[in-house]
Amino acid sequence: MTETNDHVFYSWSAQDEINPVEIVSSEGSTITDADGNTFLDFTSQLVFTNLGHQNPRLIQAIKDQADKLAVIAPAYKNATRTELAGRIADAAPGGLNYVFFTNSGAEANEHAVRMARFHTGRKKVLSAYRSYHGATATAMTLTGEPRRWANDNLDAHVGRFFGPYSYRSPFHSDSPEQETERALEHLEQSIILEGADTIAAVILETVVGTNGVLVPPPGYLKGLRELCDTYGIVWIADEVMVGFGRTGKMFAVENFDATPDLLTFAKGVNSGYVPLGGVIMTTDVRNTFAHRAYPGGLTYSGHPLACGAGVETFKIFEEEKILDRVNELADRVIQPALVELAAKHDIIGEVRGLGMFWALELVKNRETREPLVPFAAKGEDNAPMAAIGAACKKAGLLVIVGGNRIQIAPPLTVSEEELRRGLQIIDEALTEAGQHYEG
Amino acid sequence: MTETNDHVFYSWSAQDEINPVEIVSSEGSTITDADGNTFLDFTSQLVFTNLGHQNPRLIQAIKDQADKLAVIAPAYKNATRTELAGRIADAAPGGLNYVFFTNSGAEANEHAVRMARFHTGRKKVLSAYRSYHGATATAMTLTGEPRRWANDNLDAHVGRFFGPYSYRSPFHSDSPEQETERALEHLEQSIILEGADTIAAVILETVVGTNGVLVPPPGYLKGLRELCDTYGIVWIADEVMVGFGRTGKMFAVENFDATPDLLTFAKGVNSGYVPLGGVIMTTDVRNTFAHRAYPGGLTYSGHPLACGAGVETFKIFEEEKILDRVNELADRVIQPALVELAAKHDIIGEVRGLGMFWALELVKNRETREPLVPFAAKGEDNAPMAAIGAACKKAGLLVIVGGNRIQIAPPLTVSEEELRRGLQIIDEALTEAGQHYEG
Ligand SMILES: Cc1ncc(COP(=O)(O)O)c(C=O)c1O
Ligand SMILES: Cc1ncc(COP(=O)(O)O)c(C=O)c1O
Repeated sequence: MTETNDHVFYSWSAQDEINPVEIVSSEGSTITDADGNTFLDFTSQLVFTNLGHQNPRLIQAIKDQADKLAVIAPAYKNATRTELAGRIADAAPGGLNYVFFTNSGAEANEHAVRMARFHTGRKKVLSAYRSYHGATATAMTLTGEPRRWANDNLDAHVGRFFGPYSYRSPFHSDSPEQETERALEHLEQSIILEGADTIAAVILETVVGTNGVLVPPPGYLKGLRELCDTYGIVWIADEVMVGFGRTGKMFAVENFDATPDLLTFAKGVNSGYVPLGGVIMTTDVRNTFAHRAYPGGLTYSGHPLACGAGVETFKIFEEEKILDRVNELADRVIQPALVELAAKHDIIGEVRGLGMFWALELVKNRETREPLVPFAAKGEDNAPMAAIGAACKKAGLLVIVGGNRIQIAPPLTVSEEELRRGLQIIDEALTEAGQHYEG
Repeated sequence: MTETNDHVFYSWSAQDEINPVEIVSSEGSTITDADGNTFLDFTSQLVFTNLGHQNPRLIQAIKDQADKLAVIAPAYKNATRTELAGRIADAAPGGLNYVFFTNSGAEANEHAVRMARFHTGRKKVLSAYRSYHGATATAMTLTGEPRRWANDNLDAHVGRFFGPYSYRSPFHSDSPEQETERALEHLEQSIILEGADTIAAVILETVVGTNGVLVPPPGYLKGLRELCDTYGIVWIADEVMVGFGRTGKMFAVENFDATPDLLTFAKGVNSGYVPLGGVIMTTDVRNTFAHRAYPGGLTYSGHPLACGAGVETFKIFEEEKILDRVNELADRVIQPALVELAAKHDIIGEVRGLGMFWALELVKNRETREPLVPFAAKGEDNAPMAAIGAACKKAGLLVIVGGNRIQIAPPLTVSEEELRRGLQIIDEALTEAGQHYEG
């Protein structure tokens, strides 16, 4: 037993070195702790409360579904699940027609990889560095960032490549166009050198989330689509973090005019009110399992309560014109404000993002682009970034601090006033952090 | 699009060869389809609606939690989650003190294996044939039954052994006591020959569920505990199906007076009303991660809505004396009725089970014990078993038909009248099936 009598074992943590803040209530864009402190939540928790905290319509939908049919096994047909699958298929880019439901993003990626393997009859999957795909064995192996390091490469059939990252180009490019060209060349070389016929799938976060809000440069995803077509490889778009409106489109791939074979989702599908994830697949992939059993499943595939909140999510998006407001606020408020911050604070190396998903990459020097803290910094090395997070929190704002970046992902329902207030707090924290600038 | 316009992709199925029954409502021990047919549910769906369908208290608890705090990220402390972890730690056998929450049984086993590996510094895990542990990569690899066959052994560090099975002893034993002795000898030999120092964990369903309601013979789990102690191996008890009252005890290991290092659960923890699973661990395992970060996590670890239903589950168990009624009905109604069935129907080779969890193993011949259908039979080969399932269904009863077994797992809240009615239907189906007996 811990002193606090908390028998909870916490994710990703050294259990004796944490002191979790107790949250007692939440509303809209804010959460409130046991001491009565209210925080503006620009994290949407783990980027999932897309429709805000305690959204009354989502809560009502859960209650209504609970009264109707709280739970039923996946082998039965259920109207709510079928309605959600239909709405997802309608909203998804053409060709993506069927939905396999899971509980989480990790499970969605596990099943997407399995589908790709059976569909192609191949085993290998290529995933990108600077990615997160979940914590079950295959999903963890696909992950291209420090959270994998302590873990093994449990799924032996995974190879890795570099995705595009214009600001710190692995390809020494000097424009987004060149980044696209060279990143595609690198990917094609990786495919060829790994053996194109051995590769079942390439998995990629459409916009890289936790690892930096890396927006693919123009043409990259179209080029990826072409490479996959050329080599008979399945493209799995991981939209666990960026699906369902985060980028200003229902699915992030819509920003880039290219369609994957499999698209994984979770989080935003119902703002995390009930655990839900899934895989959207083309009719082609589905038909691989028309007369051959799909060798996978899970007890809560398509949980009615989770699907009820998912159906209501679509209604809210439509009726409250969520995407329009995201895009309007992004264009009119967020982007101009962040550009202004960059003009004011030399420590900001790059501003990037779209919709309600932005990153400020912080540097010691704008010329050299040396990151404010080293990659995967801990303890003292990470102090400047930790201080920024702490300063924001003290001023009542939760932001995502990852690596040398401040990442901003408010609920899509955030008000203009809240946005401006939060950005103001970041402005102040950056002023303080300016002491670390060495340029 | 299918003809039925159902965009749902179904688990474990050939999509064009299924015609899922639509369920529109449920109550207590019954579910009702779109044509108005009501079925007595002796499957508890996938053995998870332990407190019955549409349990009003569970539904109210979900609504109350939804009003209070529907969702919060795992890094925050939350009173409902902390309360559930405390109640689980209190209820679990001494020493099992901390709870890591997941969404599903598969995720619970994935994380349990990870914990065992870090705790021991070893990699290999031994799992049993005739087991199911879930469908993510490691959980699927641990699985010792046909659902794994089409899949790869994705986690290379898994070895397999034979668990005890007195009725069809892999060890040619002729009593449960001898089965225990020989099964333990076999396990010890497996450990020694695999290299004891390379083995992180042995994972075992405390009572094997889907693969046959195999109750371990006297002393087997105590012996397993001793072997694990001798060789510094972690014992993971998978109680995803049998935890939370199914066997007449809160945790199935309590029937056998032995305590694992890690115990995984899901399903019964909240009757599946909101996806929830988890790992209960000893303080010793927890302390491995006192000053070293546990390298795993998930977005919905300890989801408040799921935990709310879990807390209410404990209250219902206490206030409605669920365990007492399970044991009383098992002793007074179920076991005598099944023994009577066996006396009447030669086709029943063995009756086994405990609590609300029973199997009738059907044979062509009692002397030879030849199964009514071959292992993993499909199509025509499986016709006699399929006919039993169909006959029960036609008469309004859902039972689990798996291999050559009828398995019975009603909600723990089933009434005596319902039990007797269901057993009567099974009696009639067995009379019909008697034509296949060849003894
Ligand atoms: C892009 C991406 N994929 C997958 C996951 C894993 O999702 P989950 O935590 O629900 O398993 C995450 C979680 O943050 C994610 O951001
Ligand atoms: C013993 C056992 N372990 C694990 C699982 C996997 O649980 P889930 O389907 O929630 O992933 C099951 C599911 O039936 C099970 O019976």
